[in-house]
Amino acid sequence: MKIAILGTGHGGKAAAADMTLAGHTVNLFESPEFKENLAPIREKGGIQLSGVGRTGFAQLNAVTSNIVEALDGVELVVAVVPAFGHKPLARLCGPHLKEGQTIVLNPGSTLGSLEFLATLREMGVKTRISIGDLHTLTYATRGEGADVRIMLEVRKLWLAAFPATETAGVLGKFRQLYPIVEAGKNILDVGLNNGNPMAHPGPALLNAGRVEYSGGEFYHYKEGITPHVANIVQAIDEERMALCRALGYPAMPTTERMFLMGYAVTKSSYYEAYTTSPVFCGENPIKGPHSVMDRYYVEDTTYGCVTWSSLGKQIGVRTPTIDAVIHLISVLHGKDYFAQGERTLDRFGLGGLSVEQLNAYFETGRMEVRP
Amino acid sequence: MKIAILGTGHGGKAAAADMTLAGHTVNLFESPEFKENLAPIREKGGIQLSGVGRTGFAQLNAVTSNIVEALDGVELVVAVVPAFGHKPLARLCGPHLKEGQTIVLNPGSTLGSLEFLATLREMGVKTRISIGDLHTLTYATRGEGADVRIMLEVRKLWLAAFPATETAGVLGKFRQLYPIVEAGKNILDVGLNNGNPMAHPGPALLNAGRVEYSGGEFYHYKEGITPHVANIVQAIDEERMALCRALGYPAMPTTERMFLMGYAVTKSSYYEAYTTSPVFCGENPIKGPHSVMDRYYVEDTTYGCVTWSSLGKQIGVRTPTIDAVIHLISVLHGKDYFAQGERTLDRFGLGGLSVEQLNAYFETGRMEVRP
Repeated sequence: MKIAILGTGHGGKAAAADMTLAGHTVNLFESPEFKENLAPIREKGGIQLSGVGRTGFAQLNAVTSNIVEALDGVELVVAVVPAFGHKPLARLCGPHLKEGQTIVLNPGSTLGSLEFLATLREMGVKTRISIGDLHTLTYATRGEGADVRIMLEVRKLWLAAFPATETAGVLGKFRQLYPIVEAGKNILDVGLNNGNPMAHPGPALLNAGRVEYSGGEFYHYKEGITPHVANIVQAIDEERMALCRALGYPAMPTTERMFLMGYAVTKSSYYEAYTTSPVFCGENPIKGPHSVMDRYYVEDTTYGCVTWSSLGKQIGVRTPTIDAVIHLISVLHGKDYFAQGERTLDRFGLGGLSVEQLNAYFETGRMEVRP
Repeated sequence: MKIAILGTGHGGKAAAADMTLAGHTVNLFESPEFKENLAPIREKGGIQLSGVGRTGFAQLNAVTSNIVEALDGVELVVAVVPAFGHKPLARLCGPHLKEGQTIVLNPGSTLGSLEFLATLREMGVKTRISIGDLHTLTYATRGEGADVRIMLEVRKLWLAAFPATETAGVLGKFRQLYPIVEAGKNILDVGLNNGNPMAHPGPALLNAGRVEYSGGEFYHYKEGITPHVANIVQAIDEERMALCRALGYPAMPTTERMFLMGYAVTKSSYYEAYTTSPVFCGENPIKGPHSVMDRYYVEDTTYGCVTWSSLGKQIGVRTPTIDAVIHLISVLHGKDYFAQGERTLDRFGLGGLSVEQLNAYFETGRMEVRP
């Protein structure tokens, strides 16, 4: 299949190389403001992939900061960018999307597809495309320049389209790349299975002094998730599962999900799940956050915790631990993340909807207006 | 004057030695369960005092775990124990107090005198004594065995008695020991000037991972109060000052108070006040907390933050940062510090009183019952 990978972070480069080696035709795109990331790949003529799964040198079809070239003739567009990149990326792509193209946000964070579509709508784009959110990134991966190493090909992925009536179609395309992907109920369900709002802001907050004092010489999972800090992760996870139950979605503990995905080798406790993970704490433990302004604090609060908290308020589920983390990170940064509300239901005009109305909206994309 | 010092922590030993060298007759007491602390002092025949102020060898009048011997013939009793020691100490002293004795809680934490008196009342003790709270410990001090070093003789202290109508009397006695002490409005005002609920639980929470991962190899002020962590201290201080203003008390910023007391050499910012303090971060920086169950987390949450939060709820002052810290420390420890409510106004039967009624009660010790 001819695909475009948008984004040249670790995940984007890993996907571009892996899908090329899997036999697909891959255009790798980075937006003009970060186009220096493309230089080492162009210089080397491709990406050298190591680690688990397929390895070898991958010669890409195109390496470009021209969105027209990137999207030309592709069937599937995979956006591998942080949540704060969804809106700018939609602005870049909007005028150049072709009827019938499929976009997968890898990952969707929380409600990424809604934001992407809202941005296209604001721009007046009428092209009919399909779009879906993946619950997490397809790989655990790190790299430098044109060299990328995959530590884990994620073994279980959930995807849903917006509206969910289009999930089967998007899934059919995406499974040609990743056969292990399964359907989530809708993008809200998928976003509630994103592990980062549990694993990042709480523990990062409880290590903020260390992160700042050490100048980023810090290993989040290895040093940061201690037995007592893991209690915070568990409390956030319990609030998240309460949201899932109230919405009628499966409420799978994060430890169980990490085990199914391949991140964890045990699900005996939150502490053990993270700290015995070969991906997080093995030979090459994950380093960072690099500062108290890192995405561990900003992205996963803005695009995860705040959304979950606002959802809880709307449907009557208490989220005191999530709220306390948001408040203290707001104080830490001197910003009000609650008030910013980048991905709250209100932001998408869904404030005040009941559980039934929300589920109907995410299923069909249509808002029932009741008299 | 003949005085009894109760408690053999750093503060108790420093006070016993310093007051002996100042010419007072001192009995040093430790309760039977911690009496092993007395052994090195008995062995050496006294306490060796070094550091700033008076120095030398202090031979005490008595070194005892017998409360009858400790209180015998003394005019002034100075309790130098953590807040959680006030109740057990009141139980020990209760039956042996003599009419007219004066007790000073050094420090009173928040509402220590109320707790001491409530405990005496529960025991049926009718002896008329006077009692007051000091806003903080009289020294910054550390020591080992019979050797104690004073880093700072605090240069400004506030004291109030309960009821405040007795403040002048208690102050008169205590000034014979520490001439720099001044009158606070009442013990609630004094308790709102205790610096620990600002300086300890918030920053300790934001370093919990480090404290646990390092096994206590941690310097709270030097490593823990980074520029961004200081924002949390400032936010808590602003909530505390809002409480002071609502109650009609002076609202002095903690930076200003630290400067007056001698802890800080600058009041330019919260970060600078703590991290340039010769006491906190000088040649011998203050080490600890030693674990996430340390008094930095437990004592100052239980006997400080929870009291301030409950006070805020009662008199209509929002304390979101204090509340978030209490909630997350509760989750960290798997305990509900709000529910424990050791020193809430409710605990003392003062729930529901207005600002005017509270001030009248702390002034006179009498509850106006309105029809």
